[in-house]
Formats: sequence, structure tokens, C-alpha cells
Amino acid sequence: MNADTRQIRLDRRSPAYWRVTFDHPPLNIFGPETVPELNAIVTAIETDPRLKVVVFDSAVEGFFLTHYNFLAPVEASTAIPPGPTGLQALPDMLVRISRAPVVSIASIRGRATGVGSELALASDMRFASREKAILSQWEVGAGLVPGGGPMARLPRLMGRGRALEVLLTADDIPGDLAERYGYVNRALPDAELDGFVDALAMRIASFDKQAIAETKHLVDIASLPPDAEIGLEWGAFMGALGRPAAQTRIKALMEHGFHKAGDVESRLGYYVGQVGGWVPPAL
Amino acid sequence: MNADTRQIRLDRRSPAYWRVTFDHPPLNIFGPETVPELNAIVTAIETDPRLKVVVFDSAVEGFFLTHYNFLAPVEASTAIPPGPTGLQALPDMLVRISRAPVVSIASIRGRATGVGSELALASDMRFASREKAILSQWEVGAGLVPGGGPMARLPRLMGRGRALEVLLTADDIPGDLAERYGYVNRALPDAELDGFVDALAMRIASFDKQAIAETKHLVDIASLPPDAEIGLEWGAFMGALGRPAAQTRIKALMEHGFHKAGDVESRLGYYVGQVGGWVPPAL
Amino acid sequence: MNADTRQIRLDRRSPAYWRVTFDHPPLNIFGPETVPELNAIVTAIETDPRLKVVVFDSAVEGFFLTHYNFLAPVEASTAIPPGPTGLQALPDMLVRISRAPVVSIASIRGRATGVGSELALASDMRFASREKAILSQWEVGAGLVPGGGPMARLPRLMGRGRALEVLLTADDIPGDLAERYGYVNRALPDAELDGFVDALAMRIASFDKQAIAETKHLVDIASLPPDAEIGLEWGAFMGALGRPAAQTRIKALMEHGFHKAGDVESRLGYYVGQVGGWVPPAL
Repeated sequence: MNADTRQIRLDRRSPAYWRVTFDHPPLNIFGPETVPELNAIVTAIETDPRLKVVVFDSAVEGFFLTHYNFLAPVEASTAIPPGPTGLQALPDMLVRISRAPVVSIASIRGRATGVGSELALASDMRFASREKAILSQWEVGAGLVPGGGPMARLPRLMGRGRALEVLLTADDIPGDLAERYGYVNRALPDAELDGFVDALAMRIASFDKQAIAETKHLVDIASLPPDAEIGLEWGAFMGALGRPAAQTRIKALMEHGFHKAGDVESRLGYYVGQVGGWVPPAL
Repeated sequence: MNADTRQIRLDRRSPAYWRVTFDHPPLNIFGPETVPELNAIVTAIETDPRLKVVVFDSAVEGFFLTHYNFLAPVEASTAIPPGPTGLQALPDMLVRISRAPVVSIASIRGRATGVGSELALASDMRFASREKAILSQWEVGAGLVPGGGPMARLPRLMGRGRALEVLLTADDIPGDLAERYGYVNRALPDAELDGFVDALAMRIASFDKQAIAETKHLVDIASLPPDAEIGLEWGAFMGALGRPAAQTRIKALMEHGFHKAGDVESRLGYYVGQVGGWVPPAL
Repeated sequence: MNADTRQIRLDRRSPAYWRVTFDHPPLNIFGPETVPELNAIVTAIETDPRLKVVVFDSAVEGFFLTHYNFLAPVEASTAIPPGPTGLQALPDMLVRISRAPVVSIASIRGRATGVGSELALASDMRFASREKAILSQWEVGAGLVPGGGPMARLPRLMGRGRALEVLLTADDIPGDLAERYGYVNRALPDAELDGFVDALAMRIASFDKQAIAETKHLVDIASLPPDAEIGLEWGAFMGALGRPAAQTRIKALMEHGFHKAGDVESRLGYYVGQVGGWVPPAL
């Protein structure tokens, strides 16, 4: 892979502590072309014998990691073979992050929307900038069904009621509300986020790998959704993508600047709340 | 059904957005006579092809919806045939609200006690007046076992410890504590509650029904208790109702004004805490 | 058992309301010698026909109940036969507290570390001193795996993300954070804790035992982890205890004052964060 076109950077701070940084300006959109990059990193995380903790963060102002790339041809996604879990590539990688014998931490500054929220939810812990983090599952607002696990994961994290609110209002959730709802472990003042996460990662990196892995595995038994539940979501997403309700809404969003730096991407929660009015009502 | 004796009003704000308003002054007590009314509404919610969101609220000052009617003869309850799920009528309707392909929102002002709390818990989301909402499962304080699902639903919403506190102290939970415990999604200043819920409902009503229904269905898989768990509760409630511990306590509450507008109904948490002292100790 | 060497005091405030007080100064360490004492109390809790509520608290300044006794020979632990559930003695007793037809309340002032946290988590409710409570699962920081249920219980109480943070950072959690995370029901001002818990216990003691027990049993169905999950943890703990990563770290902690009144025991979260630096890195 050519380093110049890479969307994700891997920084081995020490043998035990890696940083994975999304660096695909201006929006950190995740598309089929991102899949092999992330897959190589997930495989390394799963298999490195010395690694204990990995932090996911972003180098792009305003965006942790955002929605799927809807400008890529659908075939670019459907042509990707299933992963080792038997799930399709995106849910496969997310499930593997959750199961890896390594602690994963999402350090969220800017938007974690769609895939960005799903990657954060697949991680073991989430810390957010109180001022600059926005989490959201915007999909239902665009006639879609989320595809990377949030229906399975959010109710187990925050209870059914708040999960349904997040998913069915499809609205932007700022850092402090994300903390109150349990969407993130904690929201920290932006100036403190990096230091807090770094200290936490270095602390864990000083611990014994086998103790970490066995403890995490026992938590997995108590808390991970079955892979099959995650798999259902990807199918529902692909099914919805082909329907007129989604096509019409995505087209309307595109006409207003979707996939370009600007107001639609920055305030996606607001715009999906408008898009039902721009288009002929579905019924 | 005669409009003049109806306890529940249905207001179709739009084809996609309905309001269901409990209007049975002075207390919004729920009894066997309320069952067919609510059943007709639940059936309409389940089957209307254009409906996307329904808000439950109250027209009665001080009461969202309160406990079961203990003045009605028991036979009036036991004579009601089971519903389509095979459960008894009340749990049947509650289970069907949770499973309907429509978003249900409880807008809670005043007491949501007993059946009122159970209907709120069966709804997809709950928003409460910070100043005027009180939630409670008062039953254990009267020698009863709750019958409409809270033992199945509360631990999945707020964890076992807080669920046991709510159920076994049988005490009144004001809006702010209800939010901290996750009993409601949020408690809002009373002056903002109606506007907030209305905006949220109109937003969801602008979305695509199939996207809503499929997303909710996937959350159901992750979060709904099995019907059988809910069914056990109704049996436990009916069993407890026949025992002396409950009969004595309900009689004592009646002597102090239970089922009449006044202090016992308004501060039921306080009164069930006294009733064990009014009667000979059970042991 | 000789009253003079007892580590746990049982005070029958009334036939329906007991206090169980850990009184093993200076640290309330829990060891194999504590097992028969606690077992006798758990058996009494399970079988007394009049008991409705039991409060666990401490008579030792600074410590609710802390970690296992690592000075006792391992054989003293492995020689204890399994309990009636078929689990090893400590998890057996904890599981039985959770299942007893009696309400258990942990009133936490001082450290609830390791076994102390596990006993609190096995109890039905937890209330903490805002100023003086510290909860922690310190084990991973010492190369161990917790053995008394927290991997099974914490994710069900606070969600996977916060549970993994508590377990994998192995750090001290003060009262207010414990409340925000749902580790405890509530953190109360220290001056109010005793009055609050006593009033709550007396309230429950006035209720009907059968109503309490049936309601709790239905919550158990919805919320208790399977015994087998708890059982796995004890095996993982014993396995980890024999490995060099744990032995080296425990030895280093001992050299700095572990198991003696002083800074290591009072700030165990800090010290386990240092111990990986005192010893040769495991990898």
C-alpha cells in the first residue's frame, strides 16, 4: 500500500502501546477502499504478541471518523469477500476488534458518525472531548438502517430507551449527553482528553498481557452480542440502501453538500431532520 | 364505545403521528374497564400502515396513569380473555406496544405508578417533567408483586441494583432521580417537556417507516425480555392479591383514602411505608 | 468459633433486619479463615424465616472490606470444599447472597477492593459514602484476574465499556464516579449514609417477606449471571496466582507494605500502577 494514499496511520509508541490515527481529510469518510487498510491493522492487533493497548484517534479537525462513502459504487463494497468470522468485511473487523486480546480505546474528538460511532462502540472504552465530540447514528434519518452493530451494542450499553432515542431520532449527541447516556465512558474537557487517554493507555501497557486478555475474555462472555446479531445489521443496511426512501434522501443530502466539507457534514443531525421535508413524503 | 365514558382519547395529529391521552379524572386509575379501550388503540397502532410515532400523555392534573383499580371485582379482570400473544390482557397489550413497528413515547407529567410506570416502561422512550413527574412501583409496599413487566424491564434499563431499589423500596422516584437511574431517557423542565416531545415526534414522523421499523426490530432482538418473563409477573400479581398480607394492607390504605383524590394517592410512596405499622406485623 | 477472634459481627436489630459488620482491623482483609464465618452468616440469611433485610457494613476506619489474604498459604484456600452450589467457597457464598430471599444492602465507607467490591456487587443494592468510599478491582494491576464475579456482574450493571475500564485500569473509583458509573446505587454525603441506609432497611423490614422474595426472584431471572460464569472467574484467579507475572508483582507490593496499614493499602490503585515499573517488564 502506498504510504501517500493511506487513510490510517499506525504509530507504535512502544511494543505494548499503539496509536491508530484516522487521517483522511477533510472528513474521515470510511469507504470500501479503507477496508483493506483497517483490516491489516486489525490483523496486526489480533496477532502481535507484545501489544496490550491500542488507541484510535483522528488527525482531522472536526471529524473522528464519519459515515460510509456513498459516492463509491455499491459493487466496490459488495465485491469485498467476507472476513474470517464469516461476517461481511466491516462488521467482521468490528467484531474482531471487540474480541482481540488487546485493550482498544476510542479517543473521540470531532464527529463519530455512522462507521465512526460503530468503531467507537466496537472498542473496549470510549473517551470524548466534552466540547468537540459529537456521536451519532444518522442512518434512520436518511432512510437507512445502521449496518455496523449499534442496534446490538447500544441497548447493552445504555438501555433500550436511550438506544432507541439515539437510533430513531438519528440526531447529533454532544459529549456531555453521550456521557450521561453511557454512549462514552466519560466526556473530558478537550484540553485534558489527550493526556488522560495517554496516561490510561500507558498504565494498561505496564500490566501483564495474559491478565488483561483473560479478564477481557470473561467480560466478553458477559457482554458481547452474538456475531449473528451484528451480521443481521449489515444485511439490513444493504437492503435499505437500495430502496427509494434512502436513495431520495441521500440524493437530497448530496445536493446540499453531503460528502464535502461544510455545513451538511458538520451538522448532519440537523440536515437529516430537514430532508423528509425536501422530498415528497414517502407515504 | 360511548365517547362520554371513554378514559383514553386518541388524537391523530397527522397520519404519521398520534397522541394517546389518558383522561380519566381524578386519578387516571387503570381498571378492567380500561382494557378494551387500550386494546383497540394498541391494535390500531400495530396495524395502521401510515403511523410512525405515538405519544402517550395525560389530561389529568397530577397523574400520568396510576395503579390498577382495586375496587373492581377480581372477576372483572380474570374474565378478560388472553390477548393475541397468549399473555393475559394487560401484559399482552404492553408487550405489543414494545413490539409494534411504530415508535412509542411516554411523556410523563404527574404520577406514573404501577400500571402507569409499566406502560411507560413498555414504551420505546420516556421523557419526564423534572418538577411534576413521579415514577413508582408501589406494589411490594402493599404486599403485592408488580404484574406488568417491571421486574423484566427495569434491570435491563438501569441495572440490577437500582431496579431492586425501585421495586423493593416501593418508593416515589422524582424526575431527576428517574433520569439519573435511567428510569426515563431524560427529565426536562416542565415548561419544556411538551415542546421537546412534540419536536422529537415530528422529527421521527418525517422519517421512513420501514427504516424505523427495521431498526427498532433489531433493537428488540438485543433488548426485549422474553414474553414468558412478563407473563410470570401477572401470575405473581394475581397470586399475591389473594393473600392476607396484601388484603390487609390494601384495606388499610382504603381506610385512609386510597382510590380517592387526596394525600394517599398523591404520596403513595409515603403511605405504603406507613401501612406495615398500621396493621399487625405479618410475622 | 471464639467470639474474640471473629472477623464479622452479626447484630440482629430486629427479627426482620440484621446488620453484618466486618470488624477485622486494621484492613478488613478477607482470607481463607474468614470463609467459615461468612458461610455461617450466609446460611442463616438464607434460612431464617423472619429475616427480610440485611445490611453489610464495616467497623474499621478506612476499609469496608478489602482484598484476599495473600499471606495465607494457598493450600488453606484450595483445601476448602466447594459450597452447596458446587462453586468454590468464595463464589459460592457470593452467589447465595444474590439468590437469598432476603434483601442485601452494602453500606460502603472506606475501601471496597477485590473481595470487598465483589461482596458489594453480589449484594442487591450498594450505597456509598461520597467522601470516604473507594471501590476497586485492583487485580489486573497485580497480574491477577479477579475471582469473585466482577467480570460477570459489572458489565450487566454499568455496560461493557465502563466495566472494562474498572477492571483493566485496576484503579481506585471514588464514590461520586462510582455513582455516575452505576457501580453503586447512590453516593451520599458521609454524614447522611448511615441514616439513609437504616431508614431504607427499616422500610423494607416493614413489608411482606413473600412479596419481597417473589419480586426479587423475578428480578433474578432477568439480571443474575449464570453461576457457571462466576465459577470461571475463580479458576482464572487461581491460575493467575501461580504465574510469575502475579508472583513478581505481589512480591514487589509486599516489599512496599502490602497487607500492612499504610500507604500501599490506602492507595492501592496508585501502587499497582507503579509496580510494572519496579519489576522487569513481563515481555
